Amino acid sequence: MTALTSAVTAPGVLGRSRALVRPALKEAVGRMHPWVGEMAAYSFGWCEVGGGPAVASGGKGVRQALAVLGAEAAGAPGRAGVPAAVAVELVHTFSLLHDDIMDGDAARRRRPTVWKAYGTGPAVLAGDGLFALAVETLAGTSAGPAALRLLSASLGDLVRGQADDLLFATRPWAGARRVRPGEYLAMAEHKTGALLGCSAALGAVLGGAPPAVVTGLDRAGRHLGVAFQIVDDVLGIWGDPEVTGKPVHGDLREGKKTYPVLAALDAPSPATAHLVTVLESAGDPAVAAALIDEAGGRTAALAEARRHVAAAEAALAGLPIPAGAADDLRSLLDFLVCRDL
Amino acid sequence: MTALTSAVTAPGVLGRSRALVRPALKEAVGRMHPWVGEMAAYSFGWCEVGGGPAVASGGKGVRQALAVLGAEAAGAPGRAGVPAAVAVELVHTFSLLHDDIMDGDAARRRRPTVWKAYGTGPAVLAGDGLFALAVETLAGTSAGPAALRLLSASLGDLVRGQADDLLFATRPWAGARRVRPGEYLAMAEHKTGALLGCSAALGAVLGGAPPAVVTGLDRAGRHLGVAFQIVDDVLGIWGDPEVTGKPVHGDLREGKKTYPVLAALDAPSPATAHLVTVLESAGDPAVAAALIDEAGGRTAALAEARRHVAAAEAALAGLPIPAGAADDLRSLLDFLVCRDL
Repeated sequence: MTALTSAVTAPGVLGRSRALVRPALKEAVGRMHPWVGEMAAYSFGWCEVGGGPAVASGGKGVRQALAVLGAEAAGAPGRAGVPAAVAVELVHTFSLLHDDIMDGDAARRRRPTVWKAYGTGPAVLAGDGLFALAVETLAGTSAGPAALRLLSASLGDLVRGQADDLLFATRPWAGARRVRPGEYLAMAEHKTGALLGCSAALGAVLGGAPPAVVTGLDRAGRHLGVAFQIVDDVLGIWGDPEVTGKPVHGDLREGKKTYPVLAALDAPSPATAHLVTVLESAGDPAVAAALIDEAGGRTAALAEARRHVAAAEAALAGLPIPAGAADDLRSLLDFLVCRDL
Repeated sequence: MTALTSAVTAPGVLGRSRALVRPALKEAVGRMHPWVGEMAAYSFGWCEVGGGPAVASGGKGVRQALAVLGAEAAGAPGRAGVPAAVAVELVHTFSLLHDDIMDGDAARRRRPTVWKAYGTGPAVLAGDGLFALAVETLAGTSAGPAALRLLSASLGDLVRGQADDLLFATRPWAGARRVRPGEYLAMAEHKTGALLGCSAALGAVLGGAPPAVVTGLDRAGRHLGVAFQIVDDVLGIWGDPEVTGKPVHGDLREGKKTYPVLAALDAPSPATAHLVTVLESAGDPAVAAALIDEAGGRTAALAEARRHVAAAEAALAGLPIPAGAADDLRSLLDFLVCRDL
């Protein structure tokens, strides 16, 4: 599939999934305690603080699209995947809410984060409410224990990934205790890949897919997550702020242990020692970016991302799924990562 | 059953339940991310910060005992209820962790709370990890969707109750927007009763009980929770600090909207207007306590608690459950609330 085709197909897939899932998602959020429901609606971009009409936009809705495509991959209509889509969007929003508290992030999608707008305590509660609603949504389907085992495993992985991400910040740039690229990959699979894999797999379970399809979609989603995270890291250093919406060198300025930096620090390059000095002294991020590039960090990151895209495609290639669903899944994969590689 | 019998029986029931459940609970917590697992172990009273041996004591373990007794009420051995017991203790500990953040409470069981000891972000994460583990524990049993529907409904109720509790603090003492005793009762049932009811009901489901037993135990647990909460409120105002371990008039000093205060404010008593003035100006708590008593707040609270104890006993009385389990359940009920009435 060409990049051009994906650029046309993927937004269509995302749009029709959003339209399919939104009524059920709104209905679920509508069952929450009104105050908690307002915080949930705010974080979905449906309203402003106080409940007034929204001027914000929500996220792309990648997870709900994967759940819908998972059901279609099982040969079922996309609507069979809707409860899965609702559950994973609720879990995703829960994790954004709580991660923003842990990371101290004050803005998301150009608006104050929930803890900034409503206070830390209420934001903790809103996250808990979304989490509970996700479990309730799935427990209310006829999907049975397999679906809840998938969801709870990915919840455990989310926590594991976030724990490692927080702990990475406390570790040194150099020496035996430094963070290795392999540790980063495990963290990214847990923090980002697990829920993407779960989204597609859950949709497939609700669509009645055989275990091989469920496992294959889970694996593809996990690789997609790792690739996506690495590409995000590369854009965070060398991306055009006009396109990414993020400040130039923001990740470097915050001292984040992203994949390109870790790969550069792990490389046998003369630039590495200099890079360590710059990072330890929180020196000029532009200099750090150049040294990471010189030590091969950007090249290594892009190569690793490509490996995960190829692995995701390989996981899909062998599956007995309808051609339309396979095409849509590949277009989503292309759209999310390949255009930037 | 006499108070004396309960005082002997109930600690025995709590002790044998703890012994039965602890290995499975330790095994579950042992599967967590090590850092998150340490925070969990700290909050169970198993270790100090850094993982050193504990000098603290954990809670009484009422919820795990109810789950074990729920299984026995179904005619199954108590061990059939162990996965339910693990799940509800994990949920209870999750809710304590997050509530302490929301309420800004710095101490629990004479130790720093998790957010005080490890930081707010890590405490949010540890709560999430416990929550995820609870769902995973139950999803891993053969209990099926009924068990997960019970758990997720009580999770939703926990969030609803905590939301109302937080909002009560923002409302005035007098006038149309004041908190009514009925609103308090709904809050207490959600915040405390739902998980107690769920504990016994889940144990019964795992023990293979018929729906009437599951529903009856759920109802009994909910009434127990409301009674327990009201008795706790009474002790928070008039209890002996030597016995309760709480500071004299602590709840009044913090301006908490507890049942005795709300009942006093709702009473057609000449003391009410004076009480409003004292509360609005955060005046002498001893004066407030005397006025609450004068307006009938203490009497009304104890009567309401007795009504819920009677309702819990009535819910148990009609159930086709073994006499031993029924006796143990009643002794627990007596031990937790009746001794103080």
